[in-house]
Amino acid sequence: MHAYSEKVTIISGNAHPALAQAIADQLSIRLAAAHVGRFPDGEIDIKVNDDLRGTDCFVVQPTCPPVNENWAELLLLLDCLRRSSAGRITAVLPYYGYARKDRKDEGRVPISAKVVANTLIACGADRVLALDMHAAQIQGFFDVPVDHMYAKPALLTAVRKLGLENPVVVSPDVGGIKMARAYAKSLDNAELAIVDKRRLSGSHVAVEHVIGDVEGRNVLIVDDMISTGGSISEAARVVRENGARKVVIAATHGILCGPAVERLDAAPIDKLLITDSVPPRQKAPKNIEIVSVAPLLARAIMNIHRNASVSSLFE
Amino acid sequence: MHAYSEKVTIISGNAHPALAQAIADQLSIRLAAAHVGRFPDGEIDIKVNDDLRGTDCFVVQPTCPPVNENWAELLLLLDCLRRSSAGRITAVLPYYGYARKDRKDEGRVPISAKVVANTLIACGADRVLALDMHAAQIQGFFDVPVDHMYAKPALLTAVRKLGLENPVVVSPDVGGIKMARAYAKSLDNAELAIVDKRRLSGSHVAVEHVIGDVEGRNVLIVDDMISTGGSISEAARVVRENGARKVVIAATHGILCGPAVERLDAAPIDKLLITDSVPPRQKAPKNIEIVSVAPLLARAIMNIHRNASVSSLFE
Amino acid sequence: MHAYSEKVTIISGNAHPALAQAIADQLSIRLAAAHVGRFPDGEIDIKVNDDLRGTDCFVVQPTCPPVNENWAELLLLLDCLRRSSAGRITAVLPYYGYARKDRKDEGRVPISAKVVANTLIACGADRVLALDMHAAQIQGFFDVPVDHMYAKPALLTAVRKLGLENPVVVSPDVGGIKMARAYAKSLDNAELAIVDKRRLSGSHVAVEHVIGDVEGRNVLIVDDMISTGGSISEAARVVRENGARKVVIAATHGILCGPAVERLDAAPIDKLLITDSVPPRQKAPKNIEIVSVAPLLARAIMNIHRNASVSSLFE
Amino acid sequence: MHAYSEKVTIISGNAHPALAQAIADQLSIRLAAAHVGRFPDGEIDIKVNDDLRGTDCFVVQPTCPPVNENWAELLLLLDCLRRSSAGRITAVLPYYGYARKDRKDEGRVPISAKVVANTLIACGADRVLALDMHAAQIQGFFDVPVDHMYAKPALLTAVRKLGLENPVVVSPDVGGIKMARAYAKSLDNAELAIVDKRRLSGSHVAVEHVIGDVEGRNVLIVDDMISTGGSISEAARVVRENGARKVVIAATHGILCGPAVERLDAAPIDKLLITDSVPPRQKAPKNIEIVSVAPLLARAIMNIHRNASVSSLFE
Amino acid sequence: MHAYSEKVTIISGNAHPALAQAIADQLSIRLAAAHVGRFPDGEIDIKVNDDLRGTDCFVVQPTCPPVNENWAELLLLLDCLRRSSAGRITAVLPYYGYARKDRKDEGRVPISAKVVANTLIACGADRVLALDMHAAQIQGFFDVPVDHMYAKPALLTAVRKLGLENPVVVSPDVGGIKMARAYAKSLDNAELAIVDKRRLSGSHVAVEHVIGDVEGRNVLIVDDMISTGGSISEAARVVRENGARKVVIAATHGILCGPAVERLDAAPIDKLLITDSVPPRQKAPKNIEIVSVAPLLARAIMNIHRNASVSSLFE
Amino acid sequence: MHAYSEKVTIISGNAHPALAQAIADQLSIRLAAAHVGRFPDGEIDIKVNDDLRGTDCFVVQPTCPPVNENWAELLLLLDCLRRSSAGRITAVLPYYGYARKDRKDEGRVPISAKVVANTLIACGADRVLALDMHAAQIQGFFDVPVDHMYAKPALLTAVRKLGLENPVVVSPDVGGIKMARAYAKSLDNAELAIVDKRRLSGSHVAVEHVIGDVEGRNVLIVDDMISTGGSISEAARVVRENGARKVVIAATHGILCGPAVERLDAAPIDKLLITDSVPPRQKAPKNIEIVSVAPLLARAIMNIHRNASVSSLFE
Repeated sequence: MHAYSEKVTIISGNAHPALAQAIADQLSIRLAAAHVGRFPDGEIDIKVNDDLRGTDCFVVQPTCPPVNENWAELLLLLDCLRRSSAGRITAVLPYYGYARKDRKDEGRVPISAKVVANTLIACGADRVLALDMHAAQIQGFFDVPVDHMYAKPALLTAVRKLGLENPVVVSPDVGGIKMARAYAKSLDNAELAIVDKRRLSGSHVAVEHVIGDVEGRNVLIVDDMISTGGSISEAARVVRENGARKVVIAATHGILCGPAVERLDAAPIDKLLITDSVPPRQKAPKNIEIVSVAPLLARAIMNIHRNASVSSLFE
Repeated sequence: MHAYSEKVTIISGNAHPALAQAIADQLSIRLAAAHVGRFPDGEIDIKVNDDLRGTDCFVVQPTCPPVNENWAELLLLLDCLRRSSAGRITAVLPYYGYARKDRKDEGRVPISAKVVANTLIACGADRVLALDMHAAQIQGFFDVPVDHMYAKPALLTAVRKLGLENPVVVSPDVGGIKMARAYAKSLDNAELAIVDKRRLSGSHVAVEHVIGDVEGRNVLIVDDMISTGGSISEAARVVRENGARKVVIAATHGILCGPAVERLDAAPIDKLLITDSVPPRQKAPKNIEIVSVAPLLARAIMNIHRNASVSSLFE
Repeated sequence: MHAYSEKVTIISGNAHPALAQAIADQLSIRLAAAHVGRFPDGEIDIKVNDDLRGTDCFVVQPTCPPVNENWAELLLLLDCLRRSSAGRITAVLPYYGYARKDRKDEGRVPISAKVVANTLIACGADRVLALDMHAAQIQGFFDVPVDHMYAKPALLTAVRKLGLENPVVVSPDVGGIKMARAYAKSLDNAELAIVDKRRLSGSHVAVEHVIGDVEGRNVLIVDDMISTGGSISEAARVVRENGARKVVIAATHGILCGPAVERLDAAPIDKLLITDSVPPRQKAPKNIEIVSVAPLLARAIMNIHRNASVSSLFE
Repeated sequence: MHAYSEKVTIISGNAHPALAQAIADQLSIRLAAAHVGRFPDGEIDIKVNDDLRGTDCFVVQPTCPPVNENWAELLLLLDCLRRSSAGRITAVLPYYGYARKDRKDEGRVPISAKVVANTLIACGADRVLALDMHAAQIQGFFDVPVDHMYAKPALLTAVRKLGLENPVVVSPDVGGIKMARAYAKSLDNAELAIVDKRRLSGSHVAVEHVIGDVEGRNVLIVDDMISTGGSISEAARVVRENGARKVVIAATHGILCGPAVERLDAAPIDKLLITDSVPPRQKAPKNIEIVSVAPLLARAIMNIHRNASVSSLFE
Repeated sequence: MHAYSEKVTIISGNAHPALAQAIADQLSIRLAAAHVGRFPDGEIDIKVNDDLRGTDCFVVQPTCPPVNENWAELLLLLDCLRRSSAGRITAVLPYYGYARKDRKDEGRVPISAKVVANTLIACGADRVLALDMHAAQIQGFFDVPVDHMYAKPALLTAVRKLGLENPVVVSPDVGGIKMARAYAKSLDNAELAIVDKRRLSGSHVAVEHVIGDVEGRNVLIVDDMISTGGSISEAARVVRENGARKVVIAATHGILCGPAVERLDAAPIDKLLITDSVPPRQKAPKNIEIVSVAPLLARAIMNIHRNASVSSLFE
Repeated sequence: MHAYSEKVTIISGNAHPALAQAIADQLSIRLAAAHVGRFPDGEIDIKVNDDLRGTDCFVVQPTCPPVNENWAELLLLLDCLRRSSAGRITAVLPYYGYARKDRKDEGRVPISAKVVANTLIACGADRVLALDMHAAQIQGFFDVPVDHMYAKPALLTAVRKLGLENPVVVSPDVGGIKMARAYAKSLDNAELAIVDKRRLSGSHVAVEHVIGDVEGRNVLIVDDMISTGGSISEAARVVRENGARKVVIAATHGILCGPAVERLDAAPIDKLLITDSVPPRQKAPKNIEIVSVAPLLARAIMNIHRNASVSSLFE
């Protein structure tokens, strides 16, 4: 609707101010001054203090837990920017909550990831910048441009530093095989294996087995996110039981909710690599190493602003 | 989009299942079976178990605290119903959260009540049934039909039972004067007064005074909602200081957050009438009496379903 | 949709060319050359003669009487600008007609103010600049930015020149109390009073009385508009009957239709302050003083164009 | 959005209540009770008294002069019906004003007929029923169903009663040639002629001549509408000057504004056939005969309501 | 949505790369590098190789035969540009396919020209540049700006070079009379004639006759397009039979499908002027002369980009 | 928008009339009479002969090759039905073309599957019924209800008849693993294997290997579609080379374009099971068996019409 000036505005809700600040630091600009608080009844109270008429606005807000609070803040921030005559509004979601609800896999359920998309658009987002969404097809839930970044380059750099010899890349379930394959290709066409877990009919116990060969090999288990840590820690255990040597985990989003930390601490994991796409849990699991995506997101924001290619950042 | 059959579906999120049940009981129908839970990471997990293709669906969900959780549930429920081929979907909001943010009273703030409206529409609401929205103009935030009900008839019945002689109706602030006047007209054209509170420049202490005369009179203070109880309890005190005899409060929405119960208990209130538009707080203030709006909402739902006049219920 | 160039275009329909010209003069630019006439059958005939591709267009058109003619002109002008590749289109409504129909206060009526909003958007308005809309909530009838200006600073300057000692600010009815309170706060926290008029059941005569005290005091009656002048002149009379000394009226929009001038001339009004938001009636009421809003609107237009804060103009 | 019941509602603004009544009479139903008045400032005041929830509503309102008043009434009526939960809303435009502005024939003009279409849709029309729109392409200005009726059958019946022997059908200008040809085909493949009027460069006098042969022949001049009567009366004169015998005019819409009656009275016209699509002017031109379209529109409404073919009415 | 930079991008599908190249040459810019191919199953495979973020993009794609392939390519190209963050997207249709289906002339048919319009908008076109659309009203099928160019100036230049003395301009049917009249006016107010073809009831043979006089005269037959060449070649024959001397055809779009070339070769045509709005057929009809519209379209594109008037190009 | 009557209309374009007929036969109704032809220039010519006002319409049109022709027919049919006042319109896509372009996997490409979705909605589809879309997330490209059916039950019945002992289910690439797993679960929790093909850098030869164990086992290779037959026939060869006994293929959509038949005939395939979701190729590959999905689609249509559960058909 509007032209935007040369000025970039980075603004943050309460989801992850540290990441927003890190991005702003990378860009050598000041985070916009905004109050995003709560009224006594829990309603969100927003007041942006900097004038941002005509500027190119980026709202940095992963919709991680508390997901509904963070989502609501994002919607109200977008409306606030639109009514404040922002020049252009980009919703930056380092973590896109509800992304696993990307289709109806049974009758009478919502497609929650589409609900998130529809509400972002209804509130004024002109474009979206997201990182490792659970399904790449979510780009098609939007008709505005979506720049979908991958944390793979950053995580791979950390993986390579570990000096794993001739690793096998393992997907902890069939859904993650495409991502595992992408990592395998980047690691000198490493071999691939999958952990397949199935519940036999009439039984409450799931049986896991590894499709592919991990015996005597270093293993890199990759996933887009770790939520309660169940499938990742089971995958670690089952590859170890199948004779794996070193077991390294690389995952983009460290949600780490519920029993995640306990489970990870109990599993045979030699190294756990996650990014700062969501704020760290208070108690970190052992052997963890945090890889920052702030440089990646900062470069993407600057390229978007300057009309430079974003896909070139993937290489 | 679709025709709807003769069947009515009443469905509830977690905001106020007791009210939904009471409405269903009034209509002698069974509440629809639905699971509205949480995944370990806090994402909402919805699965409706009853088939509702083609039925006339009413989602009962006040967006009271926890407002963002309740709002998010409502959005996902609407999407779920739409994708499940509901015949028609009415969002029933006995309490419309964020209604006080109905305009920009300063620069760079959202119009949160419009954000709620836009998202309800984006997720598939075909119509809205609401009760005592803070501003009647919110009807115009929608282009679908909005049936705006008033709790006044129910509260007035309770007021009349108290047998207050020759009462003065008092608005606790200038914003509530129209509602107070409506009550005054219904009470034999009772007299009207207003409590006006103002902060003198350079001072942190607000001075309150009563415009109109309450000395030696029974007072009915009316408001659409009680949030932290600040202005209501101060109004009670100031009218008592100005010589009021009995002090009765009638308010539709008893949010009662923060220090509300303490404040109300400490104030000179002889009777506190509120409705069940939102769930009761665990510890109730003293002298409280709950007036149910379930019969009113049930009649409205039945009239909407049968294409009978809803405005006729106002009389 | 488009970027707009450095060029500002001010264009006027037939509603109030003098005000458009005054705004253009303030900005030292030429009013755009446009023919807005009528065909013999009364259809509006529009032809803009200046090229305005890519410019930042402001259409100045209060929708005052003849309201439907002015509204229709505005819609056709907007469509004309859109199809002529205007860079950005702002509808400037110094008076927003139909604003009093901002909600359904009974069954089976339109929300006319929303109809106006919907049609402005359907015809291509990118944003709105309005002055003292009857209800501030009308901002929420739009999802595009609305800059809502207040004539209060201009009118207060004129009030202060009158040197009224220790005035009481009076609202002529309960609906105007918020505006009256805003004036009172600006006048050293002046006292407040309200005229409440009610029709007793079974009677055709309305009884008015003053809530608050005006005896021996100078009175400033404020309102957003004077239409037929009924409530304002009655308010003037009733405060005088209650012992008021000087009676001054300050109102933004001087519609002055029907018997307005006769009524105002007959009422005990010492000074009548209105703005030029709508064209003056041919015969002015006595004691009138016109306060121009052209400087205010011109500054707002320039700030909008230059991406400078508009809310800063309120102070 | 909604299912509609078996009940039909016919409702009228002030444009042409007599036609609405005639249609209702044809259908043996009562016109809906509605107040469509004016406030003292000229704003339209609408209140529908009959309940119409869920009914199949037809708003009969030609947008003839005063076109902007009638258009505004139609928009507000549509919004009123939508918010009153009408089951389905059909805008019935026996005359579609602004239809001649159906394209940009020069730079910087509106496409007014599209503005009318956009506003009808923005206010809630579910479908449109129109009669002899100036350009059939206006159907494509809508995405909702448009039933486009032709008055030709009714007018031809009246023409045939005149017993014109071997007539030539004449279009008064090149724009009307398709309509003239349609009449000619229905009249036993009658011959066709056109009046072509052109202004020579540097001259203010237009020269008219007839393409085709009318000498000694009876002439039927047909047009979709008569506005100021200029081209029709000139066409009558020029065919008479070229030797025509009887001159009969058949036109659907008798707008007859400005000098129309004087011009028609002065022209050599033996019979003037127009329909009642718009209300009659107070002073009728001589030799006029009014042909009613009420039976045609009533049948179309009933077929629409009963899901029967409307195109079958054309034959 | 976005501002666009100073850079212009011209991009072409497979419909008419030679024309796109000619336009780019006129503008001294390089055609954007893009792959628009087919997968083995016939699905279109698009990959744009140049970065075009923020540029002012013009997609040159006449929807000539194979019309559905060309239309589909255009839709996918538009989506590709939108998702690639193009600054502004103009669909350039030198030939607008399906334009003859611009209204419902019978029941139960689509308005295909509107379907084309709706899909262009749904896929992201910000504006349209078209040449000699069959009906000018198609502009109103859009709410975005449409620049409708005419090939008349280019064709008239070629006509004038032929030195036809005192020509009569002939429309091959009643639908083309307005276009014929426009040419006639530009040729010193030349005379006008029409070929009217009608099928007598009960007969399969159509009878053609000329309305107006062509005997001993040079004839210019004009039309917007030649499809199968039927009506044009019949018109040529019938004017020759009526004594015409030279017969020249001028038509914008040379679709020339089916038996067109045979028919034209067999008809008494002295000169056939068509433009390069669509690619030439492999075997050209005799006496043909191609007039390029590339300079016209290039100037229009440059004026659109520079916010200069496009209607000025008509003169 | 409208209520629909009890009548069901099944209508077909030229994509697969035999399937539409088979569905109609299952439902014991007559296929609607419609002409879907071509004009000489290739434009689609549609005329529906049956009246369908108010009926519940199902357009059966897989968008298989020639995909763009079939897609265009579908869009025009939808528009035709909408303008003909269809009661409700369901687009039935037994094969959803362009489904593999469901995300941007590189810069500057379209999301073609979303373009298809957007155009279906823009042309009036009220709902969608599809079969085995390449990605289930395409449901979220729509906001209208999508009933996504699976051919698995029909294909499994045919597989079971083959009496394969203790089969291993094989996915021909990592993308199909989820579908393979679903088949494996239904076949008594059969084991799973994947063929992984990768191109070594600097090499043009891809190396395939099997992850999992197939030696001495019967193999069922499953996929959603066979296009050129490349990956399926290579998968058959590689499992045979790894010691598989019987090799059976089950795939929903038999596109079989380009060299597909030759490749399949040359591969070690004992049985090839595909459905009739798309029309059969003229020359069938050997060992083929066609499984009809007409009963499944017919039941889904009937359940949709009768507001019965469609997901119940999955079991």
